[in-house]
Amino acid sequence: MAQRKTNRTTISDVAALAGVSVSAVSKIVNGKGSFPEATRARVLWAADRLRWSPSAAAVALRGAKTRAIGMVVNRAPDLLNADPHFALLIAGMESELAPRDYGLLLHIVGEHPEAEERAYRRLADERRVDAVVLTESRVNDPRAALLRDLRMPAVLIGTPWRTHPIPAVEAADREQGMKDAVDHLVDLGHRRIAYVSGPEDRVHTGHRRRTFTDRLHHHGLLPSHTLASDFAARTTGAAVTQMLLDDSPPTAIVFANDMMALAGISAARRLGRDVPGDLSVVGHDDLPLGQLLHPQLTTIRQDLDHMGRAAALSLLRHLGEEDTPPPPTVTPPQLIIRESTAKAR
Amino acid sequence: MAQRKTNRTTISDVAALAGVSVSAVSKIVNGKGSFPEATRARVLWAADRLRWSPSAAAVALRGAKTRAIGMVVNRAPDLLNADPHFALLIAGMESELAPRDYGLLLHIVGEHPEAEERAYRRLADERRVDAVVLTESRVNDPRAALLRDLRMPAVLIGTPWRTHPIPAVEAADREQGMKDAVDHLVDLGHRRIAYVSGPEDRVHTGHRRRTFTDRLHHHGLLPSHTLASDFAARTTGAAVTQMLLDDSPPTAIVFANDMMALAGISAARRLGRDVPGDLSVVGHDDLPLGQLLHPQLTTIRQDLDHMGRAAALSLLRHLGEEDTPPPPTVTPPQLIIRESTAKAR
Repeated sequence: MAQRKTNRTTISDVAALAGVSVSAVSKIVNGKGSFPEATRARVLWAADRLRWSPSAAAVALRGAKTRAIGMVVNRAPDLLNADPHFALLIAGMESELAPRDYGLLLHIVGEHPEAEERAYRRLADERRVDAVVLTESRVNDPRAALLRDLRMPAVLIGTPWRTHPIPAVEAADREQGMKDAVDHLVDLGHRRIAYVSGPEDRVHTGHRRRTFTDRLHHHGLLPSHTLASDFAARTTGAAVTQMLLDDSPPTAIVFANDMMALAGISAARRLGRDVPGDLSVVGHDDLPLGQLLHPQLTTIRQDLDHMGRAAALSLLRHLGEEDTPPPPTVTPPQLIIRESTAKAR
Repeated sequence: MAQRKTNRTTISDVAALAGVSVSAVSKIVNGKGSFPEATRARVLWAADRLRWSPSAAAVALRGAKTRAIGMVVNRAPDLLNADPHFALLIAGMESELAPRDYGLLLHIVGEHPEAEERAYRRLADERRVDAVVLTESRVNDPRAALLRDLRMPAVLIGTPWRTHPIPAVEAADREQGMKDAVDHLVDLGHRRIAYVSGPEDRVHTGHRRRTFTDRLHHHGLLPSHTLASDFAARTTGAAVTQMLLDDSPPTAIVFANDMMALAGISAARRLGRDVPGDLSVVGHDDLPLGQLLHPQLTTIRQDLDHMGRAAALSLLRHLGEEDTPPPPTVTPPQLIIRESTAKAR
C-alpha cells in the first residue's frame, strides 16, 4: 500500500481492505446491525491496520437512537438509598420507558461540579443517550445553559430557577400541601411550630419555607424554629434534639422530607418524648416507608410516580416516539393525615 | 520481526507473539467472544510484553464499546424503593463505574419472564451495553444460559444455582452472619425463635433458612415458626401478627431483610408488644435505615457496597479497561448487635 497520495485514510479504504461494503463498515463500527463475528473482526482488523477511526461525521451518522435516557446525579453514590424519593422518580420513569424498550442510563458522579459537566458532555459527544432528565432544580442552575449548548433534549422534574428556563414537569398548585399542613397543625392547637428544610441551593427549599412562613403569618403566628439541613439523617437528629431541649421547644415540626421526619421522631423518642403525644411530626414526599412506621407518618404527598412518568413521556414525544400518550397531570401536593400528628398538649 | 521500519507495535505483533489470530486479539481486548482463560491470559501477557495497547483509533473503533453496563430487573418498578438493598448495590457499582466514565443502564421490566428475556436480547443485539450485572440468583436461573447464548459478558451478584454456572461475586463464608445471629439469640435465653424468609425461588432463601435451622439443631432447638414471604411489608406484618397471637408465640424473630424486620416491629407494637422487651428482632442487610430507628436494628450486615464494586470491577477488567484494580474482597456477612435484641423474658 506504498504510494498513497494522501495519508488520510477513509472508510472506503477500510471497506476495501476488509472486503465489505462501506455501509457494513459504518454499521459495524457503530455497533449496529448483526454481522457474522468473522466479518466484524475483519473490519476491526482492517480499521486498526489502517489506523482509521470513525470521523465525527461517521459518529453523527449513527443518527441512530440509543433508546436510552440519561440521568446524571451529582451526589454521593449512596443517595439512591439515603433519599428514596429518587428511587420513586426512577420507578415512575421506568414504568413508561421499559414498555417502549428504552432504558435509563444512570451516572452518579459525586459532588464535584466539573464531574457533572463532564458527564453531560460525554453523553452528548458520544451520543450515549437521546435525552436527559434532571432533578433537584437549583438556584442559578448551570445545567439549563449547558444542555442547550449541547443541544441535548432535557426535561427538569421540579420548578426551574426563574432566570434559567428549561422544559419542566411540575405539580399544579404546588403550595397547597404545605398550606394544609400548617392549617392542620394550627387546628390541632399547635402554636410553636418549627420547620426543617433542605439545602439552601435547592429551588424548592426557598419556596416551601416561604409558603410555611406565609401560612403561619396568615394565622398570626411566627415559626418557632427554622433550620436548613443537608438532608442527612444524622445532622437532622442532632438539630431536632437541640430544638427539643430549648426553653421553649416546638410542639410540632414540619420536615422537608420523610427521611428527616423519621430521624426527628427517633431523636424525640431518645429524649423520652412521645410522638404524637408530646410532639407532632409532618413529613414530605409520602414514601411507602411512612406507612410501615408506628405511628404512621402524616406527610405531604408528592406525586413522584406521575412526575417520573410525565418526564419520560414528554421526552419520548419530543423524540418522536409514536403511540406516546400525553404526559399525565401531576396531582398537587396533598396532606395525608395519619398518626404522627395529634392535639397539642 | 527484525527490520521493522517503525517501532510502532501493531495488533499483528501481539497476535503473533500470543500465537492467536488478529481477530482473537481484537475480541479479547474488547471483551467480546468467549475464549479459554489461558488464551485470554496469553494475549494480555503478549500485549503487555510488547507494550501494545489498542490505539486511540482502535479504542474509538470499539464503537462497539458503549461504556454502559446493563442491569435488567424483573420486578415491579417500585422495587428500588421497596427494597433498598438494590439501591446499595447500584451505589457500589456506580462508585467504580462513574470514575471510569461508565454508566449503568437500568431496565426494570416487570415480572413477566418473556419481558426479561426480550430485554437481554435487545441489549445484546443492539449492543446497547458492554456487559450485564445480574442480581437475585434464582433456582434454575434461565439467565445463565441465555447470556451465554448471547455472548454477553455477565457477572452475578450472589451464589449461582448449582447446575447453572455463571461468573459470580459472593461473600466468603456466607453462613457466618446467620450462625452468629442464632447463637446471639440463644445466648440471650431465647428458645422460641422464628424465621421469616424471602421468596422460595431465590437461591439464598434456601441457603439461609437451612443455616438457621441447622444452627438451632446445633443448640438442640427447632424453629418455633418459619414463613416464606414475598418480601412485601404488608404481607409480612400480617404474618407476624398471626405468629404473635399464637398460643406459643416466638420470643425472637429473624427476618430475611431489614424492611421486613421493620414491618415486623411495627406489627408487634400495634399489638402492644415492646421490642426488644417482649420480642427480639434481627434483620438482614444492614440498610442505613436500621440506625435511624428506635430501637436501632440488630441485623446481619451484607457488604453490599463491596459486592457492587466487585461486580463492576470484574466486568471492567473483563472488558479490558486499563488501570482497573482487582475486585475487592467481600466481607462475610456479619452480625451487628444494636438495640432490637435483648434477654428473653
